[in-house]
Amino acid sequence: MTSPPPDRVTIKDVAARAGVSKGAVSLAFNHKPGLSEATRDRIFAAARELGWAPSSTARSLAGARVDVVGLAICRPARLLGLEPFYMEFVSGVESVLSEHSCSLLLRLVRSPQEEAGLLESWWRGRHIGGSILVDLRADDPRVPAARRLGLPVVAVGHPSLTGGLTSVWTDDTTAVTEAVRYLAALGHRRIARVGGAAALGHTGIRAAAFDEVARALELAGAWQVATDFSGESGARATRSLLAAAPRDRPTAIVYDNDIMAVAGLSVAAEMGLSVPGDVSLLAWDDSQLCRLTHPMLSAMSHDVHGFGAEVARTLFGVIAGEGAGSHPVPTPVLTPRGSTAPPDV
Amino acid sequence: MTSPPPDRVTIKDVAARAGVSKGAVSLAFNHKPGLSEATRDRIFAAARELGWAPSSTARSLAGARVDVVGLAICRPARLLGLEPFYMEFVSGVESVLSEHSCSLLLRLVRSPQEEAGLLESWWRGRHIGGSILVDLRADDPRVPAARRLGLPVVAVGHPSLTGGLTSVWTDDTTAVTEAVRYLAALGHRRIARVGGAAALGHTGIRAAAFDEVARALELAGAWQVATDFSGESGARATRSLLAAAPRDRPTAIVYDNDIMAVAGLSVAAEMGLSVPGDVSLLAWDDSQLCRLTHPMLSAMSHDVHGFGAEVARTLFGVIAGEGAGSHPVPTPVLTPRGSTAPPDV
Repeated sequence: MTSPPPDRVTIKDVAARAGVSKGAVSLAFNHKPGLSEATRDRIFAAARELGWAPSSTARSLAGARVDVVGLAICRPARLLGLEPFYMEFVSGVESVLSEHSCSLLLRLVRSPQEEAGLLESWWRGRHIGGSILVDLRADDPRVPAARRLGLPVVAVGHPSLTGGLTSVWTDDTTAVTEAVRYLAALGHRRIARVGGAAALGHTGIRAAAFDEVARALELAGAWQVATDFSGESGARATRSLLAAAPRDRPTAIVYDNDIMAVAGLSVAAEMGLSVPGDVSLLAWDDSQLCRLTHPMLSAMSHDVHGFGAEVARTLFGVIAGEGAGSHPVPTPVLTPRGSTAPPDV
Repeated sequence: MTSPPPDRVTIKDVAARAGVSKGAVSLAFNHKPGLSEATRDRIFAAARELGWAPSSTARSLAGARVDVVGLAICRPARLLGLEPFYMEFVSGVESVLSEHSCSLLLRLVRSPQEEAGLLESWWRGRHIGGSILVDLRADDPRVPAARRLGLPVVAVGHPSLTGGLTSVWTDDTTAVTEAVRYLAALGHRRIARVGGAAALGHTGIRAAAFDEVARALELAGAWQVATDFSGESGARATRSLLAAAPRDRPTAIVYDNDIMAVAGLSVAAEMGLSVPGDVSLLAWDDSQLCRLTHPMLSAMSHDVHGFGAEVARTLFGVIAGEGAGSHPVPTPVLTPRGSTAPPDV
């Protein structure tokens, strides 16, 4: 615990501006009863104008036990059900929440703007004691919203995207670079990447890393296709990449998740191409799926369950008053299996 | 809406027993402020003693807007992440909740007993306006708990398991019978079923249906193996079934979900057996996974997303005061693909 800088706005300033006692400000921000709605609104307005938020420490010392934390996911419901990543992530989060007798408040939203509004209503409505932000974007509206509310959050994403909020993140640049270097070391000179949704910050980081390593290695061909992460879109992207003449198509494809790689394997079979003879495929995340195909899929392996658990542990730290920090989780590592090999030239 | 039977306990009786006004009972059960903890407890005790619960209608007419509903799942976190069923089910639930600006409070529990306690604390703590009960068991403690609390719930399971609570269910008996009859019609006389967790009510129903149809068809061999629904346990079960001499092993296997069937396909390849030449495999649920394997998996297809959506819609009906009912969703239908064929004799 560190003292605030001397010229920082304090709870006294907020109380003075709202014309109430410090105790009333504390009641309002700890979501305790005893204030009229009008007083509460005046206090929140004063805090907003002054840019003040209670420190999480103060809140936690005030005895607010956290039994619910929030998670909003901005993906279409249908896609979510088919994406092993999120269920593994959520199961990792839940494994830590359970130890604390804490539940997860889950909501599907259509946009980060909607989520920013939801966070405010969850927090003001005393539904949550903190929240997990996922799929960060450039200039994400959730970042200023969380700051303004003084809401304890952990942002899942590279610190360049999380505006100083506590972040838990994966080093995607290093992982993409390693994936492409491995394929190049096998002898591949034409490499494609089937990426996720273009608007997401981590997709942007992976795309930039792919461009950079392709240039550095002077690949003869480098393609990137954006998808919505679904198996169907991965199959479509693979079909369009492999439809070119043999000398013009990639001999290796890296996917942004594993379900798209599984779909890619099916497409290769459907097009009469052998894996890895005609084309090498490299999956990402490496859920159980990758070991259930034939050949088994080589993958950039990532303990997604452990990632979710680390996010939940970090959130409890933030709620308990730990200062903002940046928490990298282990970088995905290459797990070579049967779907990657030198190209048949 | 029907009137209560004339000799039924009313809110007046509860108020009299607790020594408070009817208004106070209403405040307590609508989770409104204005009562001391002691009064609230006295009211709940009186209601419990008299077996009284507020009708959902009264609650809803009292204007309680429901913005959170609960879902506890009693499966190990690690397994949950790998089971496409639950994520698709949850995504279907969320698709309807989103339309109502309602969030899902999700918790992993270790037992139905723990869940019964959780439901009480969620409900008394005003965290939820209703809840979804899944994986019903025989004599499930959640059924009396929900009744006693007057908690609006939808139980996902056959009416024989849900003790008169509103149920949404799949006709597993018909589906299992159809699956086995189909394999027998192809000429299979030795058929195995790799089932889910033995303690679950729907697993019991499927096991009984399998026994009955195997007897009715006078199969030469019928095996059932219980698993924990994981790919690993499905692989183990498949290995042990296929390790017998060719004349003593099943020529067709039905699985209780799709990830175990995908794992079974890998095991067959690993053991040098062709699918469907040496063994036919039939999956259950039919998530996208079944269309991503080679050969594609025949399956008992089930719109799991639609199932989740129907459960959420039914729960809103219960919360709005609709009487208890039994809502069957469409029975899974056979979708033959490349993994089933007549046996090579």
